[in-house]
Amino acid sequence: MSLRSLDRMRRTADEAAGQGLVAIVVAPSPDLVYLTGYDPPPLERPTFLIVRPDRDPVMVVPRLERSLAAASAAGERIELVGWEDGVDPYALAAGLLPPAGRVAAGDRMWATHVLGLQRAAPGLDLEPAGPIVGRIRAIKDEDELAALRRAARAADEAFRRIADEPFLGRREAEVAADLAELLIAHGHARADFTIVASGPNAASPHHQPGDRRIQAKDAVVLDFGGELGGYHSDTTRTLVVGEPPLGFERVYQLVQEAQQAACDAVRPGARAHDVDRAARQPIVDAGYGDAFFHRTGHGIGLEVHEPPWIAAGNQQALETGMTFSVEPGVYLEDKFGVRIEDIVAVTDDGVEHLNRSPRGLLVVD
Amino acid sequence: MSLRSLDRMRRTADEAAGQGLVAIVVAPSPDLVYLTGYDPPPLERPTFLIVRPDRDPVMVVPRLERSLAAASAAGERIELVGWEDGVDPYALAAGLLPPAGRVAAGDRMWATHVLGLQRAAPGLDLEPAGPIVGRIRAIKDEDELAALRRAARAADEAFRRIADEPFLGRREAEVAADLAELLIAHGHARADFTIVASGPNAASPHHQPGDRRIQAKDAVVLDFGGELGGYHSDTTRTLVVGEPPLGFERVYQLVQEAQQAACDAVRPGARAHDVDRAARQPIVDAGYGDAFFHRTGHGIGLEVHEPPWIAAGNQQALETGMTFSVEPGVYLEDKFGVRIEDIVAVTDDGVEHLNRSPRGLLVVD
Repeated sequence: MSLRSLDRMRRTADEAAGQGLVAIVVAPSPDLVYLTGYDPPPLERPTFLIVRPDRDPVMVVPRLERSLAAASAAGERIELVGWEDGVDPYALAAGLLPPAGRVAAGDRMWATHVLGLQRAAPGLDLEPAGPIVGRIRAIKDEDELAALRRAARAADEAFRRIADEPFLGRREAEVAADLAELLIAHGHARADFTIVASGPNAASPHHQPGDRRIQAKDAVVLDFGGELGGYHSDTTRTLVVGEPPLGFERVYQLVQEAQQAACDAVRPGARAHDVDRAARQPIVDAGYGDAFFHRTGHGIGLEVHEPPWIAAGNQQALETGMTFSVEPGVYLEDKFGVRIEDIVAVTDDGVEHLNRSPRGLLVVD
Repeated sequence: MSLRSLDRMRRTADEAAGQGLVAIVVAPSPDLVYLTGYDPPPLERPTFLIVRPDRDPVMVVPRLERSLAAASAAGERIELVGWEDGVDPYALAAGLLPPAGRVAAGDRMWATHVLGLQRAAPGLDLEPAGPIVGRIRAIKDEDELAALRRAARAADEAFRRIADEPFLGRREAEVAADLAELLIAHGHARADFTIVASGPNAASPHHQPGDRRIQAKDAVVLDFGGELGGYHSDTTRTLVVGEPPLGFERVYQLVQEAQQAACDAVRPGARAHDVDRAARQPIVDAGYGDAFFHRTGHGIGLEVHEPPWIAAGNQQALETGMTFSVEPGVYLEDKFGVRIEDIVAVTDDGVEHLNRSPRGLLVVD
């Protein structure tokens, strides 16, 4: 186990203690990868990392994954407690926890495991671990920033290549498949999503690319990302095929200005809420408030969506090293949609754009 | 929405009512796919399908996925309740549930969502939905059986091809990559796992293939599977490279007999426990009981691991249409391991082997 993992677990334990928690229990998930480097798949047989303020960490692992855990980065320093099929792993974990008190459960832990722990340890009061582990994970170190830069540049390069190909007459699903291949060709281990939403489909932010053939005068929203070196990319650009549809240019300019204003609002000490407001206000002022019906952004790192949430009402202060998307959009049903998204990092001075793809309107064939 | 989905939801509602539950809440997961055909990724913004005995189903969806949900198989018949960022989706879901009573939560629902529902609806008593939805899903219809047969045959074909290639001197990870390619070449949409565990590594059932070069006299456990048409394959064979290591042949024969005995025990009305015992008893009798430290098998379908669990203590009666793995193993630390695994289906008459790969010892180069 690296010193970095030890440091991360220690900070988690300290933060838990500071918030009055008696333990944090983490199942296989990006939280576990962050804290230990151990990355088994989440399964019905629970694996629980137990971080306690006053004691060394311990991990409950299925016997048939014990060798795997022991050989991993986690195995060197964390005490492993194996359990065989037939043993109640929840009772085993409960025995490693105090009988009463507040315990945080990792955000992605499966319901079976959450409810199993609650049943085995009725004196414990479970709450989500996001406010603690997510807060620590939100601030990236230099290596993490470098990994996110590499992922963003690879996504930029994939976009540059796809924008050179013709769009007219091709099916959304074909363009999406090409974009996925380009992400991988430029270094991604995996393409996680390649939304290609054309014409009226672009009014659905999470549209699933389908058989629709892209037509002249279509706006096309491309929202794509994947994983590279454990860290994620997530970029959106909106293109237009030939002449823009009626009213499109005004909306595009509005979204571009909103995105710029939000990026300009990023600096240490600004609140997540303020960045959201900076993006939202110009859109509301222009009468499109109802057409921008999602938050402005989300943190990104080991997960494509993670804290901090750049959303109305989130008073969390931004800190140097936080990385998140800035992605306002306007969606006009049966007409078109526009979204522009970059990943940014908070720096001591303000903001660093991890994506470098041009943000001005791009007209394609 | 297909009639099949309606029927599945009705059976789920009936079963819930029969067990005294007031509702079942399902998040994006194989459960949701099974019940509705809708398959969004699980994310921090919750989607909840709410199935209630006395009312029509309703689905709470993030506003930005509402078009997607509406366009899906689920959209035609299920009332959709959209929620925008800023709204508390847990309070919204709680408003669609009775104020008190037992509610089952889908097994894979994330902890954030389980704990969010508990906080918003403190009068409800949550329990895992597995015993209800898992029980219904465990019995496959003809189309599902056909899909599982296709997946099994494709895995068999991949195995036939990999067994023709040389093993000696190659790294485990290379063989694993080839096996993944072969699964895809034979029709799999995705290879989910390709365990290649050679020599002493074979004593770790969930070994992660690594840089070890396969040597003469190695036993090599290959455990591989993926997804084809929404359904899964999962097969294990153990090969030997040239002359077997000392004591290997006796153990191989023992595991083969145990696997055969367990398959022979499969018939409607037999208990999961009995199948496990049929595999375990000969291994225990031979003095290797401690070296077979996992259950005998797991159900398979939309998930690679799902009910029924073929495990000691599980008194569940087998029924025609259930599909599961039969996979005893013996693991001798620092020496070798043996596992033989097939997918079988319970038929009116007894058992159907979905895999057809030979189970006798295969010697490879």
